[in-house]
Amino acid sequence: MEMELDGEGRMVVRPLLTDLYQATMALGYWRAGRACEAAVFELFFRHCPFGGSFALTAGLQDCVRFLRAFRLQDADVQFLASVLPPDTDPAFFEHLRALDCSGVTVRALPEGSLAFPGVSGPLLLVQLLETPLLCLVSYASLVATNAARLRLIAGPDKKLLEMGLRRAQGPDGGFTASIYSYLGGFNSSSNTLAGQLRGVPVAGTLAHSFVTSFSGSEVPPEPMLAPASSESPTVDLPASVNLWLKRVCLYLGLEEQEPHPGERAAFVAYALAFPRAFQGLLDSYSVRRSGLPNFLAVALALGELGYRAVGVRLDSGDLLQQAKEIRGIFRTVGAQFQAPWLESVPIAVSNNIDEKELLRLAQKGSEVNVIGIGTNVVTCPKQPSMGCVYKLVSVGGQPRIKLTEDPEKQTLPGSKAAFRFLGSDGSLLLDLLQLAEEPPPKAGQELRVWPRGAQEPCTVKPTQVEPLLRLYLQRGQLCEPLPSLDESRTFAQQSLSRLCPMYKQLQNPAVYPVALSEKLRALVDSLSARGPL
Amino acid sequence: MEMELDGEGRMVVRPLLTDLYQATMALGYWRAGRACEAAVFELFFRHCPFGGSFALTAGLQDCVRFLRAFRLQDADVQFLASVLPPDTDPAFFEHLRALDCSGVTVRALPEGSLAFPGVSGPLLLVQLLETPLLCLVSYASLVATNAARLRLIAGPDKKLLEMGLRRAQGPDGGFTASIYSYLGGFNSSSNTLAGQLRGVPVAGTLAHSFVTSFSGSEVPPEPMLAPASSESPTVDLPASVNLWLKRVCLYLGLEEQEPHPGERAAFVAYALAFPRAFQGLLDSYSVRRSGLPNFLAVALALGELGYRAVGVRLDSGDLLQQAKEIRGIFRTVGAQFQAPWLESVPIAVSNNIDEKELLRLAQKGSEVNVIGIGTNVVTCPKQPSMGCVYKLVSVGGQPRIKLTEDPEKQTLPGSKAAFRFLGSDGSLLLDLLQLAEEPPPKAGQELRVWPRGAQEPCTVKPTQVEPLLRLYLQRGQLCEPLPSLDESRTFAQQSLSRLCPMYKQLQNPAVYPVALSEKLRALVDSLSARGPL
Repeated sequence: MEMELDGEGRMVVRPLLTDLYQATMALGYWRAGRACEAAVFELFFRHCPFGGSFALTAGLQDCVRFLRAFRLQDADVQFLASVLPPDTDPAFFEHLRALDCSGVTVRALPEGSLAFPGVSGPLLLVQLLETPLLCLVSYASLVATNAARLRLIAGPDKKLLEMGLRRAQGPDGGFTASIYSYLGGFNSSSNTLAGQLRGVPVAGTLAHSFVTSFSGSEVPPEPMLAPASSESPTVDLPASVNLWLKRVCLYLGLEEQEPHPGERAAFVAYALAFPRAFQGLLDSYSVRRSGLPNFLAVALALGELGYRAVGVRLDSGDLLQQAKEIRGIFRTVGAQFQAPWLESVPIAVSNNIDEKELLRLAQKGSEVNVIGIGTNVVTCPKQPSMGCVYKLVSVGGQPRIKLTEDPEKQTLPGSKAAFRFLGSDGSLLLDLLQLAEEPPPKAGQELRVWPRGAQEPCTVKPTQVEPLLRLYLQRGQLCEPLPSLDESRTFAQQSLSRLCPMYKQLQNPAVYPVALSEKLRALVDSLSARGPL
Repeated sequence: MEMELDGEGRMVVRPLLTDLYQATMALGYWRAGRACEAAVFELFFRHCPFGGSFALTAGLQDCVRFLRAFRLQDADVQFLASVLPPDTDPAFFEHLRALDCSGVTVRALPEGSLAFPGVSGPLLLVQLLETPLLCLVSYASLVATNAARLRLIAGPDKKLLEMGLRRAQGPDGGFTASIYSYLGGFNSSSNTLAGQLRGVPVAGTLAHSFVTSFSGSEVPPEPMLAPASSESPTVDLPASVNLWLKRVCLYLGLEEQEPHPGERAAFVAYALAFPRAFQGLLDSYSVRRSGLPNFLAVALALGELGYRAVGVRLDSGDLLQQAKEIRGIFRTVGAQFQAPWLESVPIAVSNNIDEKELLRLAQKGSEVNVIGIGTNVVTCPKQPSMGCVYKLVSVGGQPRIKLTEDPEKQTLPGSKAAFRFLGSDGSLLLDLLQLAEEPPPKAGQELRVWPRGAQEPCTVKPTQVEPLLRLYLQRGQLCEPLPSLDESRTFAQQSLSRLCPMYKQLQNPAVYPVALSEKLRALVDSLSARGPL
C-alpha cells in the first residue's frame, strides 16, 4: 500500500510542477559556480489565515514523499532544454539529470500550530524545490486550519462530514481537502479515494437524483427481506411499507396519497440494498407532506424486522427549525408505535453551511447531529490561500536578509531554531526564534527576548521549554517515521487544547506572541543597517 | 505525447475520486433492477460567477479523457466492497468490474460562454460519473472565467502571466489553473509542467532569493562573454559592468558604492547565463538607489556587446508610479548613452494584483507592460467555487423534476437542446432551451418563448440561429476531434467579442436572457402541478 501511495504522489507532484524561474535561476547558480554551495531556506507564513490567531501546519508527509522521490526524468530535462537558451552548456543538463535529494536536510514541526520549518541543502537544488514545497504545505495547512476552526465552532459532539469534492479547485484540490480537513478535526469525508488511499473514514448515502429517478411504478426484482437477527421467514418490504404508510398518515393527519410514491419507491429500493444502514433524504418533494411520512413508513417496516434506520438528511430550508420539528415527530411517532429508538435517529444537514450557519446549528438545544460541509471547508472562501513563503536565510554559512522598501516583506536572517515556552499550567506562553548556533533556552531561567514588532525587550521565565523543530530528513535519509494521519489528527487536537481560549477566538483573537532572541535581533539590526555581507 | 497525457490524467482522476454516495446509490439502483435503464443528466450552473453575466465553459477535454479511460480496477472494487454491506451480492461487484463508458453519450458546448451540456447513458453508471465530472468542469470553468474577466480589465495589449502555483489549492489546483487561465486569455504561465504537458507558454526569470544569495565577493568561474553577433573577442563582463556603473551613478547623481554589490553580482551571474534574455528584479534592496543603477550598468554593458535586456520586474511598492519613473529614467539614460532601445525595455510587475489594482495598472498612460497575477487568478478569492450541479432530467425516456420547497433548487425536466439566437449584427440576443424532440428553431421566424423568471412570454425573431450543443461522445465513441488548447483559447476570445458590452460589465451587468420554449415551459408547469409521473 505504502509503495502504491508513493507511486501516486510521484505522478502528481513531479519535479517540473514548479515555476520556470526556479530553472532559470538554477542555470544562473550553475553558471556562477555556486550550484553546490550550502544554503538554508525557511518556509513560513506571515499571518494566520482567516483573521485568526493560530494555524495548523500540514503537508509534511507529502513534502517528504516528494523529496525522497525527486528525480528529473529525461523528458523533464529535455523540456527544460527546450525553454532555456539553445547554447546552454550540456554539462548543466547533466547536472540536472544527476540531481536527487540525498544532500537535503529538513527540520520541521510535526503537523500542528504555529510553524517556522527550515529546509537546507545545495543551493541550486533547494531553490528548485521552492514551488512544489510551498504548494504542498500551503493549501494543506490552510484546509487543516479551516477545519479546526469549524470544529471549534461545532464543539466536540457534532459529527462533521467533508463533502466538497465537486466544488474543489481541481481533482487534487478535492483529495488534499479531504485528507487535511480530517486532520483538522472532521469526522469523515464523502471522498472515496481519500478513504482508499489515505484511510480517511468515508460516508455517504443517497442524492436527490436517486429519489427523483423513481416514479413509483417500478417493481423491485426481489422485494423480500429477511429479518435482521433470526431465521424467520422473509417479508415483502414494499407491502409492509404500504401498511405502515396508512398508519403513519392517519396519525400525522395526512392523506395517504400525499407522500410521493416515487420517493417511497426510492426509499424502499435503498432499504432493500441497505437494510442495516437505511437513511432517508427528506427534501426531494416536501419534507412534511412526503419525505417524512415516507421515511417513517420505511423505517417502521424495517424496525419490525429488527433493523434500525441510521438517519435522515435535509439539504434545503431552515435546517435548525426543521431538525427541531422532525425530532418532535420522531418522539411522538416513536411513542405511538412502540419504537423508542426512533427518537434518537441522527439528523444530518447540509446546504452551503459556513461558519455563521454552523454556529447557529451548533447552538444549545439544536437537534442536528451530523453536519455536512462542502464548499466552505474545501475552498476556504474566507481566505482561499495561505500566503506561505520560502526564503533564503543563509548561504555558504553566511546569513542572508531581504531588505525591501516594504518592511512587511523583510526576512529574518540566519539558520534558526525555535522553542515553545509553557507556563506552570501547561498552557502556551510564547514561541522563541533564535539562531541555530545559540544554546537552547532552559526551563526556569529568566530570558530577555524581543517580541516581534515590539520596540522594547521583555523578560520571560518559562516553566517548560519544548524544541519546536524536529529533524525529519538528514542528507536525504528519513530520521524518524512519519506519524499516521490519525496520529497527526490527535496531535492537532491536543495542540489546540493547550492553547488559551483568547487565542482561539475566531474573530479578533489575541495575537500569540513570537519573539526573537537577543542575538537574532542584533543580527537583524546589523544587517538592516549595513546591508548583508 | 498524447498517450503520456492520457496516462497522466488517469492517475489523477481515478473512478473512486467520487463521493461515496454515488457507490451506495449504484448498489440501490442495481438492487432495484434499474442499473441499465437509460438516463440523462445535465451539468449546468445556476449563477454566473463573480457577480458577472457570463461564464466560459471549460474542462471538456479532461472529462472526455476521464470517460474514455473509466474502468474500476480490482483494488477499487475491493475498496468499495470493504465499505458496502458485507452481505452485498457478489454479482453487483461483477457488474462494477465490467463497467466502462461504451454506453455513454455526451453533448456539450465547446469551451466557451453560457452552457447547458448533457450527459446520458445507463443510470447506474452516469450516476457514478457525477462527482468527477463536476470536479473537472467546475473549477476549470471558474478559472477560465476569472482569467477572461482579468483580460477584459487589462485590455488586449498588456501581457498577463499566471504565477499562482505556490498559492493554488493543491498541486493539481495549480496545474488546472495554469491551463485554464491561459484558455481564458492569459499569455503565459510560470508553471513548467503546464508547458511540458499541455503546451502553455511558460515564462520566468529570477526571484529575490537569487539576488540575496550573492554577497558581491563571488568570482564567476568564467567571466568572459562573447558579443552577440560577431566573432570579435570576448569581454570581461563584470569589469565592463563596473565601468558602466560609474557612468550611470555619475549621471543619476548616486554614490558609486550605493548600489548593492551582491545584487550586481547576481545580475552579472544571470546575464552570463542568459545574455539574450537578461531581466533585472529591482526591489531586493532599494529600487532607485540599487536595483535600477545595477540593472542599467549590466544592461548597458550587454548592450555594447549587441545584447538587449528583455525586462525589469517590480514586486513591491506603488507599481504604477515606479513604472512611470523607471520609464522616464530609461528614456533619459537611453538618450544619454546612445542606447535608444533602453526606452522600450518591458516593465513587469507583480504583488498580489487583483481586479481593482489591475484596473489601475491598465489605465491610459500606464508604463506597465507585463502583469504577473498569482493568488487572485488561481484561487478566485471573489468566489472560489462555481456551484455547478449535475441533475437527473430523464430516466427510461420519462422526464424527471426535483421540486423542493426551495424554488432555486427546482430542476428543468426532460432531455434538452439549446440554441443561441443572434441579431442582424451578429451579436448574441438570447439562448433558448427546448425539449430534445422539438424541431430546431429557424432563422427569420418569429417565436414565442418564456424568458426564465418572467411571468409573460415574449416574441423573438432571430437573424441567425446556432445550435449550442455538439455531440462529442456517442456510446463511448469520440465523434469529432477535440480542439487544441490554443484553438479553444481563440474560440473563447471570439465568443466574448460577440457579446454586447452591457453583458461584459464586471459589476452589475445586464443579465443575458435564457428562455424556455413553450413546450418545455408547459412540461415544467404540468410536472410542478401534479408531481412527476
